[in-house]
Amino acid sequence: MPEKILLSHGSGGSAMQELIRGLLLKKLHNPILKELTDAALIRHRERIAFTTDSFVVSPLFLRGADIGKLAVCGTVNDLVMLGVQPEHLSLGLIIEEGLDYRTLERIVDSIASSARRAGVSIVTGDLKVVERGAADKIFINTSGIGRVIKGADLSLKRIRPKDKIIVTGEIGSHGMAVVCGRKGAGLGFNIASDCASLNTLLLPVIRKTRAVKFMRDPTRGGVAATLNEIAGATGYGILIKEKMIPVAPRVRMACELLGLDPLYVANEGKALLIVEAKGAEKVLKSLRKHSLGRKAKIIGEIRPGLGGKVVLETRLGTERIVDMPAGEILPRIC
Amino acid sequence: MPEKILLSHGSGGSAMQELIRGLLLKKLHNPILKELTDAALIRHRERIAFTTDSFVVSPLFLRGADIGKLAVCGTVNDLVMLGVQPEHLSLGLIIEEGLDYRTLERIVDSIASSARRAGVSIVTGDLKVVERGAADKIFINTSGIGRVIKGADLSLKRIRPKDKIIVTGEIGSHGMAVVCGRKGAGLGFNIASDCASLNTLLLPVIRKTRAVKFMRDPTRGGVAATLNEIAGATGYGILIKEKMIPVAPRVRMACELLGLDPLYVANEGKALLIVEAKGAEKVLKSLRKHSLGRKAKIIGEIRPGLGGKVVLETRLGTERIVDMPAGEILPRIC
Repeated sequence: MPEKILLSHGSGGSAMQELIRGLLLKKLHNPILKELTDAALIRHRERIAFTTDSFVVSPLFLRGADIGKLAVCGTVNDLVMLGVQPEHLSLGLIIEEGLDYRTLERIVDSIASSARRAGVSIVTGDLKVVERGAADKIFINTSGIGRVIKGADLSLKRIRPKDKIIVTGEIGSHGMAVVCGRKGAGLGFNIASDCASLNTLLLPVIRKTRAVKFMRDPTRGGVAATLNEIAGATGYGILIKEKMIPVAPRVRMACELLGLDPLYVANEGKALLIVEAKGAEKVLKSLRKHSLGRKAKIIGEIRPGLGGKVVLETRLGTERIVDMPAGEILPRIC
Repeated sequence: MPEKILLSHGSGGSAMQELIRGLLLKKLHNPILKELTDAALIRHRERIAFTTDSFVVSPLFLRGADIGKLAVCGTVNDLVMLGVQPEHLSLGLIIEEGLDYRTLERIVDSIASSARRAGVSIVTGDLKVVERGAADKIFINTSGIGRVIKGADLSLKRIRPKDKIIVTGEIGSHGMAVVCGRKGAGLGFNIASDCASLNTLLLPVIRKTRAVKFMRDPTRGGVAATLNEIAGATGYGILIKEKMIPVAPRVRMACELLGLDPLYVANEGKALLIVEAKGAEKVLKSLRKHSLGRKAKIIGEIRPGLGGKVVLETRLGTERIVDMPAGEILPRIC
């Protein structure tokens, strides 16, 4: 294990995986935690899911999002990924002394309206203030609970070769909105975050069909990290086709300028779905009827070979391995 | 509302109350949140409680406690106060780049052993790393869920004049352990925090008797803040007797030296119970059988008059009002 915690330990890549498995899973092990799903499934008389997420994004306000909206949508989406109807959120605020009240109010307004839109309520909370310099403006933790949809059965264990991989829309917008929103970046690309709650897009699909086997939102580490996690957990390879992957032109341009690969850039309003091949077109059609899914695409499939790797077929027809991100990508993206 | 957020907004006193009521409750209102209990009670087929707490204590390690133990015990106790058997915790870590891995490991060890002792499991988590200087070493959020004990009916609404007030042990130890643990304090008092999970002390009592009407753990703002909250919410006055309030000699001496009043100093392993008069002695006896309750005392009672204030009868027989703490007391106490 490392001597010091580095930014790469929070980047969603392999360093973070090692820290989680090498320290946290080892010491806190229990059958629910070890599943490492986005939320914990807890059996009461009904199945309840429970999740947590902290938000440390910088800057606090972006085009199309802010730390408050992110805190609601991020936790809502962690529940949705398990086929869960989000119901209740908690709100933990850690505030730096001296924060403008107006800033806090804007953030709370955004939390309130995002919660309303997602149909969840903030039912409990906690407030801490630390002295100037001990935190950067504000950090927010939202934990969430919800009820598992009847019949929902989303699990890595159901994934098989030939299953299709669907992305619900254009990738990389959130991460590039953060980069462009940072002081000094001044790139003029004016990219808006894709931050959105995905319950109204995805839960109706889960209710209608059993074809969707697994969902995950590609946040830190982007599509690359999520697909590598799936490959790692199932042992199957994954083939994706560059020409099928939707990326907004301005996101692509900003990525090229900065030497970033959109596959590694964070999303906050997108999901990757692993879908049984024969149901994939129908799922795609349903998704496209929703404003958040209009640009959904089948981008690849599960393969038995490929050495259990994620492989990208480029526009030129060549193939390259898409590795797990290893180091620090973009800190404080969410 | 204020222009800037001040440390006093996080101190558990009236400034925090105003911020919570003036901003958070107003914008996020819903019937569950407005109860402002330590955890949210959510009706599923069984009653589930849900709570959250962030920990920003400095220093990270104290005699008798550390941020990891606090994070478990604090959230466990928030559930216990509602008559809830704590079951599952989430763990959200916000770490400053450069934290020693050994420090993180010690904290996780402490979380693991505290969770084991309290009979709860960490079932979901989140990890963020922020760049050097953007946070102070580590902040921890723990949210928790549990099941409401059958028959438990703890509510401010049940409180009536003549009800007795029980404190489960000596007060002020946690806050003074933090003060003495801070660099430069060097007071030589060697005070240990009282940090402990109270489920094994309190839940058996709740199971046995309906005499306990309300419980709360006097953390930030101490016994003074908690009693003022009870007085404010019920409209009744509260009379407490100084000579009945248990304070360890070294805590009393440290408080005197620093000009602090133990009534305002935080506790992390104590509870205040409001108990029907005729059952109070029996409850006291049960508490005293447990190692965490050996010094439990009846310290006062609910009174119809007193102008709805908290009044202390001093050792000299005079009376003084114990106000809600107003400003910054001791920041980063938990």
